[in-house]
Amino acid sequence: MPQIVLVRHGESLWNRENRFTGWTDVDLSPKGTEEAHAAGRLLREEGFVFDLAYTSVLRRAIRTLWIVLDEMDLMWIPVRHSWRLNERHYGGLQGLNKGETAEKYGEDQVKIWRRSYAVRPPLLERGEERDPLRDPRYADLAPEVVPLGECLEDTVARVVPYWEQEIVPALAQGRRVLVAAHGNSIRALVKYLDGVSDQDIVELNIPTGIPLLYDLDDRFHPLGHRYLGDPEAVAAAAAAVANQGKAKG
Amino acid sequence: MPQIVLVRHGESLWNRENRFTGWTDVDLSPKGTEEAHAAGRLLREEGFVFDLAYTSVLRRAIRTLWIVLDEMDLMWIPVRHSWRLNERHYGGLQGLNKGETAEKYGEDQVKIWRRSYAVRPPLLERGEERDPLRDPRYADLAPEVVPLGECLEDTVARVVPYWEQEIVPALAQGRRVLVAAHGNSIRALVKYLDGVSDQDIVELNIPTGIPLLYDLDDRFHPLGHRYLGDPEAVAAAAAAVANQGKAKG
Repeated sequence: MPQIVLVRHGESLWNRENRFTGWTDVDLSPKGTEEAHAAGRLLREEGFVFDLAYTSVLRRAIRTLWIVLDEMDLMWIPVRHSWRLNERHYGGLQGLNKGETAEKYGEDQVKIWRRSYAVRPPLLERGEERDPLRDPRYADLAPEVVPLGECLEDTVARVVPYWEQEIVPALAQGRRVLVAAHGNSIRALVKYLDGVSDQDIVELNIPTGIPLLYDLDDRFHPLGHRYLGDPEAVAAAAAAVANQGKAKG
Repeated sequence: MPQIVLVRHGESLWNRENRFTGWTDVDLSPKGTEEAHAAGRLLREEGFVFDLAYTSVLRRAIRTLWIVLDEMDLMWIPVRHSWRLNERHYGGLQGLNKGETAEKYGEDQVKIWRRSYAVRPPLLERGEERDPLRDPRYADLAPEVVPLGECLEDTVARVVPYWEQEIVPALAQGRRVLVAAHGNSIRALVKYLDGVSDQDIVELNIPTGIPLLYDLDDRFHPLGHRYLGDPEAVAAAAAAVANQGKAKG
């Protein structure tokens, strides 16, 4: 039976500061580094082996993957990077502290920006300093696909083709695949795989550093999924993610 | 003008203990980790940028590459792994302390095994515990290409096709290439590129963690090469490598 494991990167420095990160290339925090080691040890202890790994072009996901592969003695397997697995692009909100944004705009607006399916954040302008086209990792992409801010619907629209055109063919070759990505790119995959509604996906939280295992049928549709590891840790991690949108006291 | 940078992994735990390592998957020593950071900082400070990196399937080279890419803010570039860039396979000598081996067999025999062009070390047996075919990273290769012990001529014979069939085509596409590999796989490349004789290649030492820059013509033949960084450090590093074959006092 085909399977796939998805893992959200460990806590980043900006997760810890409650800032909108998006495509900002922030590194893991010390806690996030430890979460990645724990994920790798867990996968090794549960007997998982991978032939191929996918990740984004952002260092917090790449470092999470590297740490996991190191723990699993799989540093040598091929790794494919794609911007399509990046975090949702938070446009003009990037860099803002989530609590401060909530105080300024209200918790409801923050939650709409973070979690509504089709409402985009304030967009960056093409050519401004933070335009991804000015970053060498995106410079060769067609400008029309490079976002200046995304709603989750936009993220789904660029993640799903990667699933269909890159990951499914690898699964079809019998390859055992690990994906290390971000809260919203994993949420996009989960929405697509499990047919989660636009409303419900807003409330679905992906915990950091906890491997999510999907069992798949022979057409690579999901038969079921579960988080690996201690159930209490899984619940606590998901609750911590949900609280990030709350205004500070 | 096309260029390529080659870098030998930093000091490994077994380099430090003077053991024949070969395909044994030994990690970097703390000093080797620092050498890798220094190489990455140097490449960044000298303004190098790479689009593509090659390395072996052994962790000391992969970790060196990861550290260099991290220092250069290039964690996101594609990395291709191949067993063809592995260290020379030292067969039955793997794991033996070089000084002890020299005391037992004499310095001259050790130097022949380490440095002669066409004399193989004692070979492993197919199917024994250390046969590479029992390691998942080599299990899918044709058994006839998987060595049980190599002379440098054997290493050259499997490195050169990789240069011609993988690296040159990437250079021809205009890609800026970094190779993180091993003392003997880099020596094999240097022999091929510079037409070093079988005799002279034995005396040529590749220092650990010091980037070696080749300028290439439009047919990817070398115009010249130089080590990057402080000349005294380069000379000291090469001398340290040469002394590894000496018996302990």
